Amino acid sequence: MNDEVLGRMDRYIAENMARWVDELAALCALPSVSADGKEMDACAALVGEMLEARRLATEMLPTAGFPVVYGAGGQGEKTLLFYNHYDVQPPEPLELWDSPPFVATQRDGKLYARGVSDDKGHLMCRLAALDAVRAVLGDLPCRVKFLVEGEEETGSPSLGEFIAEQHERLATDACIWEFGGVDASDTPVQTVGMRGICYVALSVRTATVDAHSGLGGSIFPNAAWRLVWALNSIKGPDGRVRLPGFYDQVAPPTARDLELLAALPDPAPDYLARYGLAGFLNGLTGGVALKATEVFEPTCTICGLTAGYQGPGSKTVLPAEASAKVDFRLVPNQRPEDVLAQLREHLDREGFADIEIKDMGSYAPGRSDPDDLFIQLVVDAARGVYDHEMLIAPMTGGSGPNAAFIEYLGAPIATSGMGYPGGLIHAPNENIRLDLFEKAIRHTARIVAAFGA
Amino acid sequence: MNDEVLGRMDRYIAENMARWVDELAALCALPSVSADGKEMDACAALVGEMLEARRLATEMLPTAGFPVVYGAGGQGEKTLLFYNHYDVQPPEPLELWDSPPFVATQRDGKLYARGVSDDKGHLMCRLAALDAVRAVLGDLPCRVKFLVEGEEETGSPSLGEFIAEQHERLATDACIWEFGGVDASDTPVQTVGMRGICYVALSVRTATVDAHSGLGGSIFPNAAWRLVWALNSIKGPDGRVRLPGFYDQVAPPTARDLELLAALPDPAPDYLARYGLAGFLNGLTGGVALKATEVFEPTCTICGLTAGYQGPGSKTVLPAEASAKVDFRLVPNQRPEDVLAQLREHLDREGFADIEIKDMGSYAPGRSDPDDLFIQLVVDAARGVYDHEMLIAPMTGGSGPNAAFIEYLGAPIATSGMGYPGGLIHAPNENIRLDLFEKAIRHTARIVAAFGA
Repeated sequence: MNDEVLGRMDRYIAENMARWVDELAALCALPSVSADGKEMDACAALVGEMLEARRLATEMLPTAGFPVVYGAGGQGEKTLLFYNHYDVQPPEPLELWDSPPFVATQRDGKLYARGVSDDKGHLMCRLAALDAVRAVLGDLPCRVKFLVEGEEETGSPSLGEFIAEQHERLATDACIWEFGGVDASDTPVQTVGMRGICYVALSVRTATVDAHSGLGGSIFPNAAWRLVWALNSIKGPDGRVRLPGFYDQVAPPTARDLELLAALPDPAPDYLARYGLAGFLNGLTGGVALKATEVFEPTCTICGLTAGYQGPGSKTVLPAEASAKVDFRLVPNQRPEDVLAQLREHLDREGFADIEIKDMGSYAPGRSDPDDLFIQLVVDAARGVYDHEMLIAPMTGGSGPNAAFIEYLGAPIATSGMGYPGGLIHAPNENIRLDLFEKAIRHTARIVAAFGA
Repeated sequence: MNDEVLGRMDRYIAENMARWVDELAALCALPSVSADGKEMDACAALVGEMLEARRLATEMLPTAGFPVVYGAGGQGEKTLLFYNHYDVQPPEPLELWDSPPFVATQRDGKLYARGVSDDKGHLMCRLAALDAVRAVLGDLPCRVKFLVEGEEETGSPSLGEFIAEQHERLATDACIWEFGGVDASDTPVQTVGMRGICYVALSVRTATVDAHSGLGGSIFPNAAWRLVWALNSIKGPDGRVRLPGFYDQVAPPTARDLELLAALPDPAPDYLARYGLAGFLNGLTGGVALKATEVFEPTCTICGLTAGYQGPGSKTVLPAEASAKVDFRLVPNQRPEDVLAQLREHLDREGFADIEIKDMGSYAPGRSDPDDLFIQLVVDAARGVYDHEMLIAPMTGGSGPNAAFIEYLGAPIATSGMGYPGGLIHAPNENIRLDLFEKAIRHTARIVAAFGA
């Protein structure tokens, strides 16, 4: 790919940005929150239209849950599969948004909306890249496939089975993951592994109806206390997860992993400033120790707690029920099914047989070889787009269904996109920077062009 | 008081029930929830009108919070003070009400509404009793005073100071408390003591903004975990409160207390059925052991928990803030101010200096002498109204500002009213039985007549 062709591609991208921003805004206007299931069909239909507008043969493929929007097109020896999702996180707490979450709003070179980064912006980025490649090369130089699912934010409960069933249709030489982006210094980062997740709802009911707290405080079981004690038994103030066998399968980072981590910038100053933290857990201050703990340690996080009266003022009530949402982030070679079994066994043994566990979805952890040739192609394609050489992160703290792709399709998985640390994904005021959006389109167009060359 | 006079009083009461039910329904239509402060003025004004309609000289007396409605009237040597409150508990959770909480609704001989028992029905009962006494005797045979406050459900934060300042105006020979009623076998129970309360909101903030749970799970502090661990440090699964010195001032029940408790019916079967409990704490099954634990043991109750995402489905968030509402029920001779200090000291020492404590209101515990002559008068007045002899409970599990009355007015305090175990006060479907409402009016009318005789 010579510089003149790349220059034409970049000019085309610069000239078409406004059109793609509008197309992205229309996609963000649909509140496709998979957690509550509203507007999912309308969003899937719009994604289908967007794929068809790129001359991809598009199908709405059923799953056990929300459908997968599938599209395929292009010519060539090799196949590149894009994985994205059209569902988004819930927008709550609404009062912390500076503009309505489902009205994409430009301010200061950024575009704000729920899902504008995670993951509608990334889908838009890839479609824009196809537009640019076609505009300059006349056609796509390889086959492309899009798998756009609707359940990523609720743990992709149907995707593993879907990929297993559809592995022939999905066959590919390589895969571009749903996200990608830069770190706090605008250095692009290639992420080749993801932790797994086991997300559970824990609930307990101790009575059929709430009681007056003056009545039963000394003699009635209290659902909120039961929940607190059960949670405390799972992880105490030392931060160690107390499930039997939880750490047995944990594979520590390799020497190559630590080498790659060492090359990554220290995230500590950015984290401290962005989240207003007083410090990190366990006396960590930064460097490889912080970086390795962040992604190679499994976690147990309380995502939500609810019991009794939560309004203003006071209500003297003894709650009949209480619940918590908890996620475990898993590292190679932990398995979500093992954690579920360990959790039940632990609660029973600790006297909490009354705590119900509801499996809210899980992913196994998964990794690609950081030294795979396709990973190198993606790293090379970033030169000339970003000011810094792309770095390789051997693992990220987040989770996704990459294990199913690795197991059933056997293809290496690379990341590309316009994520950045201030993107506030999963939080109020989620946003993308429009300069990074343009760079991500340029990078993705280069990947497609180079992959098919 | 001869039987003919009592018979005329009872007939008058029977003939006027419908009028008083309508008057009570109008009072319940005002959602005077002191926790959120709505409709408080309108409710106080209506209470004032209701007192004036009984020819009481009525004043709206300011306090540091919501005003006290005060009324005085009648002739005689002796003075009887009625204590009531016009505020109610929040109606939430609304979806569990079978009829709207602020539309008093009759079903199956009961009247349902928030506050219909606690405490608007009791105020109505006393005013109806004055109507009946006047209708039969021509005038009241004693002086009566009404102190109707608006902050009882939020811990009466202004009442202690109000009583101290107004003790000359409030001077009285005896006091009738805001509640009273029967047990599960319809036996009237005289309650002569109340536990104190120290209600706190505990909150913690670990970051300025929520994080993605995949990002900080291993390295960021989590507000929800901090709260869980702090709560667990306050009371563990053994049920013992771990604050330093918490039990030091606890006075165990006396022999006379245990004698009175032994005469009370066993509440165990009713509790088990009504609340759908699998059992009681600490292996208690009933009898004096259960009864003594219920009211003579101090408690620590989680009334509410809130953190992070609590909606449907899953959200992978690491919460920046978390909070709990907790009440401590105190027995003689514990003091709320000591418990607040113990709580702060304990949290600091256990490494939870980041947990903020907000004092949401408190009462000291308070008791009258169960063998006082006025208590005996009230017990005697119940004969001929109820099928069973009135029992004396030396203490109840609930709380109220009786300590301030005892300290500043020095008068014995008796209970009378139409409460019953199925009344669901502080819960959805709060109700009174109309048969007990009528009996309570008859009892209260007898108390007034006998007290002034």
